Amino acid sequence: MLHRNHWTDDAMNDQAPTVTSKTQALARRYGADAVPAAGPWNQHLDLLLSHRSVRGYRGDALPDGTLETLVAAAQSAATSSNLQTWSVVAVTDPAAKAVLAKVANNQKHIEQCPLFLVWLADISRNQRLAAEENADLVAAGYLETFLVAAIDAALAAQNATVAAESLGLSTVYIGALRNDPLAVKELLGLPDGTMGVFGLCVGYAAPDAANEVKPRLPQPAVLYRGAYGNPDEPALRAAYDTRMAAFSRRHEMTQDTWTKRVINRLGHLASLNGRDKLAGILQAMGFPLR
Amino acid sequence: MLHRNHWTDDAMNDQAPTVTSKTQALARRYGADAVPAAGPWNQHLDLLLSHRSVRGYRGDALPDGTLETLVAAAQSAATSSNLQTWSVVAVTDPAAKAVLAKVANNQKHIEQCPLFLVWLADISRNQRLAAEENADLVAAGYLETFLVAAIDAALAAQNATVAAESLGLSTVYIGALRNDPLAVKELLGLPDGTMGVFGLCVGYAAPDAANEVKPRLPQPAVLYRGAYGNPDEPALRAAYDTRMAAFSRRHEMTQDTWTKRVINRLGHLASLNGRDKLAGILQAMGFPLR
Repeated sequence: MLHRNHWTDDAMNDQAPTVTSKTQALARRYGADAVPAAGPWNQHLDLLLSHRSVRGYRGDALPDGTLETLVAAAQSAATSSNLQTWSVVAVTDPAAKAVLAKVANNQKHIEQCPLFLVWLADISRNQRLAAEENADLVAAGYLETFLVAAIDAALAAQNATVAAESLGLSTVYIGALRNDPLAVKELLGLPDGTMGVFGLCVGYAAPDAANEVKPRLPQPAVLYRGAYGNPDEPALRAAYDTRMAAFSRRHEMTQDTWTKRVINRLGHLASLNGRDKLAGILQAMGFPLR
Repeated sequence: MLHRNHWTDDAMNDQAPTVTSKTQALARRYGADAVPAAGPWNQHLDLLLSHRSVRGYRGDALPDGTLETLVAAAQSAATSSNLQTWSVVAVTDPAAKAVLAKVANNQKHIEQCPLFLVWLADISRNQRLAAEENADLVAAGYLETFLVAAIDAALAAQNATVAAESLGLSTVYIGALRNDPLAVKELLGLPDGTMGVFGLCVGYAAPDAANEVKPRLPQPAVLYRGAYGNPDEPALRAAYDTRMAAFSRRHEMTQDTWTKRVINRLGHLASLNGRDKLAGILQAMGFPLR
């Protein structure tokens, strides 16, 4: 039996999308007064626009083969020069999920979700094949190669996320695995040249976790044409601050503007939860970052 | 009028996907002898599995509003702590595309495609708002924050890619913009705290550029359960080498195995095309990478 959330049922109906679905999807994402002049539309767009990060899960198991479906989608994403410098570890064991939840500042949804995916930047597989062929991957030690691996892991994970949501599942990325990459390495037996860049909870949303689509910055604040910059940026930010304060009030029992959130998050080293040590830790894990 | 490629028409039909479409999609991606035991399936999976990178474009313009549709999909991807530390610059001017093609080792498809998107890791917008509020984003100078920005740009770009392909458009990521980030910065007027992490060609595939789905490593070579590693890795690689040599022979007039490609790409500093200097360049562009 498929368990679907109400919004996914909307997105997944097989009928051609209507002008209504497009306008509604854009209004949910941007606010009714900031709908961009989008063009072609279809049911895939309805799905993409309906994304929410979900932080509460039912315990229900996933249908057989769900993991393989998600990874097939992930492997279908582009990968730089076909190097495939990423891997994924599927974690279902409650004790292991409890360790990962602790790394991530006790985020309970890691323990609740039936499937937790740890996405790895992974140059070790290519280093193993080179060693077997008596070759030396001199480029592997550069920041460029780590960056390629992290980006490829992100492209793959996003495809898996879209796939999961198309199946009525919910997800949330867990960047807080970077609070303690060495603990993740020890738990999962990761070799040097791999790093858990983020996690992903996968499961059925708990009823009380099915929140609204989160508004984003107006398009003109992130999309530029030909050259960077928009003189209206302060006004665009002010409009978004109003929208996000209202969203917080409805959902988070605070009244924070986006501006205040950004300053709280990036204005204090304590908010990095140890991630200010990431460069040194990566170097100790086989990424010299030259 | 919509221009669709033959494979997209397959993926986009509105009928429920069949067992046939699932088996075919998996066999194209992995080879008929390495089909994973995937579970639930639908038309969104058909679309995701059908991805190809396309390196030849017709000049046809895109329907009005296509850019806004793609960016709405991009902004719907998750973004760490809602910081939205990415931007995108849409480039359509032929002279500007010619400069970018030159940065990217003369990749002609950058000039051919009607829309070229430069995806930015962008902490500068948040730094501007902090300056306006007399706050100091002390966390912005850390590798962690650059990594978040690059990953968020990748999640956004991958949603845009899925959206483009759902509309019958083709794409290819251009990592070679990192050959010379300063040239990209100068061309697009990028402020400090932004970096073009990669480009993306968007357009209608030229008939002779509509290639086969590229096979990927067998799933057991990238997907681990509970702990990293697979003792069968050498055999899995050998099987994939055979598959990729046949693919190269059919499409690229070489007979290279995957192993040989990886060693060619990462075994010589020259293959980095200047990207061995990336760490220093990023530091000069407002990313101290502490």
